[in-house]
Amino acid sequence: MDMRAILEGVKADVAGHIGEGKVADYIPALAKIDPSKFGMAVVTVDGEVFALGDADEPFSIQSVSKVFTLTLALGRVGEGLWKRVGREPSGTPFNSIVQLEQEHGIPRNPFINAGAIVVADTLLSGHEPRETLGEILSFMRHVAGDDAIVIDREVARSEQQTGFRNAALANYMFAFSNIMNPVEKTLGVYFHQCALSLSCIQLARAGLFLANRGRMAEGHSVVSSERARRINALMLTCGHYDASGDFAFRVGLPGKSGVGGGILAIAPGKAAIAVWSPGLNANGNSATGTRALESLARRTGWSIFG
Amino acid sequence: MDMRAILEGVKADVAGHIGEGKVADYIPALAKIDPSKFGMAVVTVDGEVFALGDADEPFSIQSVSKVFTLTLALGRVGEGLWKRVGREPSGTPFNSIVQLEQEHGIPRNPFINAGAIVVADTLLSGHEPRETLGEILSFMRHVAGDDAIVIDREVARSEQQTGFRNAALANYMFAFSNIMNPVEKTLGVYFHQCALSLSCIQLARAGLFLANRGRMAEGHSVVSSERARRINALMLTCGHYDASGDFAFRVGLPGKSGVGGGILAIAPGKAAIAVWSPGLNANGNSATGTRALESLARRTGWSIFG
Amino acid sequence: MDMRAILEGVKADVAGHIGEGKVADYIPALAKIDPSKFGMAVVTVDGEVFALGDADEPFSIQSVSKVFTLTLALGRVGEGLWKRVGREPSGTPFNSIVQLEQEHGIPRNPFINAGAIVVADTLLSGHEPRETLGEILSFMRHVAGDDAIVIDREVARSEQQTGFRNAALANYMFAFSNIMNPVEKTLGVYFHQCALSLSCIQLARAGLFLANRGRMAEGHSVVSSERARRINALMLTCGHYDASGDFAFRVGLPGKSGVGGGILAIAPGKAAIAVWSPGLNANGNSATGTRALESLARRTGWSIFG
Amino acid sequence: MDMRAILEGVKADVAGHIGEGKVADYIPALAKIDPSKFGMAVVTVDGEVFALGDADEPFSIQSVSKVFTLTLALGRVGEGLWKRVGREPSGTPFNSIVQLEQEHGIPRNPFINAGAIVVADTLLSGHEPRETLGEILSFMRHVAGDDAIVIDREVARSEQQTGFRNAALANYMFAFSNIMNPVEKTLGVYFHQCALSLSCIQLARAGLFLANRGRMAEGHSVVSSERARRINALMLTCGHYDASGDFAFRVGLPGKSGVGGGILAIAPGKAAIAVWSPGLNANGNSATGTRALESLARRTGWSIFG
Repeated sequence: MDMRAILEGVKADVAGHIGEGKVADYIPALAKIDPSKFGMAVVTVDGEVFALGDADEPFSIQSVSKVFTLTLALGRVGEGLWKRVGREPSGTPFNSIVQLEQEHGIPRNPFINAGAIVVADTLLSGHEPRETLGEILSFMRHVAGDDAIVIDREVARSEQQTGFRNAALANYMFAFSNIMNPVEKTLGVYFHQCALSLSCIQLARAGLFLANRGRMAEGHSVVSSERARRINALMLTCGHYDASGDFAFRVGLPGKSGVGGGILAIAPGKAAIAVWSPGLNANGNSATGTRALESLARRTGWSIFG
Repeated sequence: MDMRAILEGVKADVAGHIGEGKVADYIPALAKIDPSKFGMAVVTVDGEVFALGDADEPFSIQSVSKVFTLTLALGRVGEGLWKRVGREPSGTPFNSIVQLEQEHGIPRNPFINAGAIVVADTLLSGHEPRETLGEILSFMRHVAGDDAIVIDREVARSEQQTGFRNAALANYMFAFSNIMNPVEKTLGVYFHQCALSLSCIQLARAGLFLANRGRMAEGHSVVSSERARRINALMLTCGHYDASGDFAFRVGLPGKSGVGGGILAIAPGKAAIAVWSPGLNANGNSATGTRALESLARRTGWSIFG
Repeated sequence: MDMRAILEGVKADVAGHIGEGKVADYIPALAKIDPSKFGMAVVTVDGEVFALGDADEPFSIQSVSKVFTLTLALGRVGEGLWKRVGREPSGTPFNSIVQLEQEHGIPRNPFINAGAIVVADTLLSGHEPRETLGEILSFMRHVAGDDAIVIDREVARSEQQTGFRNAALANYMFAFSNIMNPVEKTLGVYFHQCALSLSCIQLARAGLFLANRGRMAEGHSVVSSERARRINALMLTCGHYDASGDFAFRVGLPGKSGVGGGILAIAPGKAAIAVWSPGLNANGNSATGTRALESLARRTGWSIFG
Repeated sequence: MDMRAILEGVKADVAGHIGEGKVADYIPALAKIDPSKFGMAVVTVDGEVFALGDADEPFSIQSVSKVFTLTLALGRVGEGLWKRVGREPSGTPFNSIVQLEQEHGIPRNPFINAGAIVVADTLLSGHEPRETLGEILSFMRHVAGDDAIVIDREVARSEQQTGFRNAALANYMFAFSNIMNPVEKTLGVYFHQCALSLSCIQLARAGLFLANRGRMAEGHSVVSSERARRINALMLTCGHYDASGDFAFRVGLPGKSGVGGGILAIAPGKAAIAVWSPGLNANGNSATGTRALESLARRTGWSIFG
């Protein structure tokens, strides 16, 4: 498989679509991103890296971070986590509170905002946000093999100043005893994890263990192969909010998107792929990023569905 | 891979669980089934058949039929079908009408009852139910390679006499102009397709084209490889109603369940698997059947998630 | 109180608004009504009748009939009726099915469509629709003191041909065992009661017992004073679907509207008022009719709220 | 009308029911109230006061305060208030957030928690909570004619420490720009207004203007007669959350309940009535208090429904 040629093909497929979609404007730090950015990186299970466009430029990974905090939280509390958060697609937008009321404060899955806030609360568990964020950052640097990864403080501050729906979710779950730390501390962790800044290359490297039965390219184990499989399953069914079905239908790979325009996709046994293009479609997922992954999946035959 | 040994392992894993769950009792014809039945069949892409337990005994496939009517309808109207039915997990039970009201008569996906009724309506499109049912039956016999397959008239009659929630769904969608034939005709098709009676072996054979890039074991093409992939994606995200996420998490294969206790699962590139055990779990999916598939996926490593 | 002068004042208040709103168009028989019609009748507890405009012209009373079938049903089954239908405002449109799913087939109140269908089912209770409709018609003629009242067969037929959302509601409640007669018979009663044709004068006369502690102008008792009070309470809280609060706020009288443009309002101890103007506001209630009642209530000081 | 004899009758009617229901336990300061307390006060429009039981003992009026803050807010911003809060019964519990999501941050009415928080926000409008609370307290003292009325600081502090669902509501509406002051300030006002402590006699006096066309017993105007009518209408349709219909049906008077076990009821043109009994029914309204009002309304014939 000539990955370079495939990436050239992807590049041709998206060429007329760069800049499509609407850049997230709810926080100033995201709104000012150049909409014509486009980058893609493929890291294969044997550690080879292929890059396209702005694959080296860090961007705000936002909700893609939920994959990594989930991994950390499962390591910390194990399968007991599923008492506090479900594993089902929600059928509702990323920030919906309706489902929480009907299901008594238990979020449908760890990838909607409410679920990720519970995961952050699990990681915090009595510590100070600074310590927990240090732990998250260390983990990201470890799996990406890159100590240059940072949290963008300006983005984090912006999130904190505008995140009133997330504050609503956290207070609501606190009322149901499903947030156990002070709400502002848990939100502090959540807002900062969303402000992690990675390039496509860093992000694909960081996600490789999910494509590689739980192991990094050099062979270090991050999670068991069963856990990697299960996280992939969750990404497939819940990774794109109420457009998860459509992403599975069109791309056929587990993936997790963020409103910064990034998507991490996993081709089990083959590669981790990161794509970045800031313009979002109606469901809040990268428009051109999705298109690029659709092209890549078709050209590689990596769909998990045959 | 020694499939016989693997099936023996599965048998051992489920041995203490035969009879678990609750047999569907809403129609008399299903309620009288012996709860201790258990059968499983694996048909590999090269056409080998492996069977376990009551794999030869026909049972009512119920909602598993939705996979086949969807395949037929896509062949008939193509991707235009998606104007009348969505492709997203619903987050609600199989017979929910709430989502229909909020989304103006467009069902979330073709595997919840409302969606399958729209699919049946598409197939009917002006014909008589008898003709459409003949077409469905022919298709089932063709893909299963077995002319002995029949529709159980007693079950169909029972469904018709008790299917008032389905009648509500159909009338509701008719009011939104998303059912185009007389409601009782569309329901007639739907109730009879649910009464298709197949054994595990017949069902696994019938589903093999989904594991085999759209082709039957003998090589005849049923659908394009892309369409087979997409149907698999829908089975993965929507095939088990509001327990689809859990099935993906535990089993890791596209699957479609029915209240008769049957499940069809697809291991792309490997095999089609049918399992039957009448006792249902809280979400209306076969309890022991799910357990058997979990065991099989673990023993074979067929999970699509790595 | 010079009622004639008051009605002249109301006439002046609505003069520039005749024809406002949108005539119901979902059934042909209603769509062809002249939108410039306007009539009003006030019948005082001592039997005096005051009329304005087209107060003598029969119109389709539609959902206003629900007040009378509720009265009949309470007479038949007493307070046991409240096991099958609630007494709370629904917060949802007249034909919503969402609430039914959440509350297991028990409609919120007898004035939303689902609730009125249950009431019709109660009246039917094993008889033929023809007999029950005869009983309803007799009751209307009795309380209105006018044997000329009829059911408009053309309207009834139209309703039957287009009432698929009502059919959905009925089938749905049947599935929850809250409809006990064959669905098509219950719907037959419901569609025909909605097609009752009365003039404003007839309608105000028919409703007078609710203003008069349960008694007709001549003194004949229809219901106990307590029951009259309770029906009035239900009209106030639930009589205008999800605009009941607004009607109470603006008019301050118990009232029941119909999509034919009629409203029956009750000023307890004072009078029954019927108004008719076919154009509907966004909530499906007569636009100019509501305005006329607002004017009347202000000019008479009849608001029940002080 | 011999009010003393009537109150003796009420006393006899509730005698066997004192202590029924469940005392609100979500804040410690409420949980420790003696459940056998029962008081009732009737203040007639000519200023006579009749009292029963513990009518002199102050209790936490909680949501009954919403009537008074609404009155103040209407005086401040006039009918423009209705752009930020609706006037319809909600059909949902007092602290539901579902409706807010569906209706984009506009609460259904000013008597559910979300609506009352918007009203508090209106009163705050740039001031410090201390100033606004001073204004609310002055108003309560003025209408009750009693400078001894206070806010219970312990209760307020308890509310603040446990009010996470209210914090969720406020943050949620802030995200929709329907809370305009800092969330914690608006909540500060809200939690303190709920901690107002009045006896039945004080509360009935304070509410008298609503029974008396907007005027206090001595004749001072508080609001216009039209505004008094409208507030009464809102109390009738929305004053008891999702049991408002039942209260109208059984009692037939506008009323507003609080989880402290108090209810203020208005008999327009007749009297204001306050009742207190801490045990709550399933809907969160005073069980014995409702019973007492039912008895009073029957014995006086004060129902507004005839």
